[in-house]
Amino acid sequence: MDSVEILGLVAATLTTAAFVPQVYKTWKNKSVEDISLTMYTVLLIGVLLWLVYGVNINSLPVILANGITSALLILMIIMKFKYK
Amino acid sequence: MDSVEILGLVAATLTTAAFVPQVYKTWKNKSVEDISLTMYTVLLIGVLLWLVYGVNINSLPVILANGITSALLILMIIMKFKYK
Repeated sequence: MDSVEILGLVAATLTTAAFVPQVYKTWKNKSVEDISLTMYTVLLIGVLLWLVYGVNINSLPVILANGITSALLILMIIMKFKYK
Repeated sequence: MDSVEILGLVAATLTTAAFVPQVYKTWKNKSVEDISLTMYTVLLIGVLLWLVYGVNINSLPVILANGITSALLILMIIMKFKYK
């Protein structure tokens, strides 16, 4: 694995892990007023397309990162409806 | 441009554009209590690494998408401090 690949993997890990503190904060406070449903919906569609892209180019990091991110975004959308 | 490339471009456009409604909502309501600063900080670092990755692999779509996303995330972080 060369340094550019490692850079991509670190980037993918961070952009996926980033959503964990938001999910935790929202779950803990049960408050979603400032959260944009449009953002999370458009982002989910985009991330699902990245997932399909990852399958097409046969890239496990792209599949994994976007699969986990999708799950976190779906949790946010469920909480947006549940706690509003 | 083949269909897989177009898929990647559509995915990149959506995952960048997604942040516009959140920036607009936050700017309009001036309320940031439910927004996780940790999420936006980790996401910004990740997206900046994607930008460096894009420069390394010489991919204009990756550079453009992550450059614009970085700017939107920086706006969110500024508003998080300004409106708290």
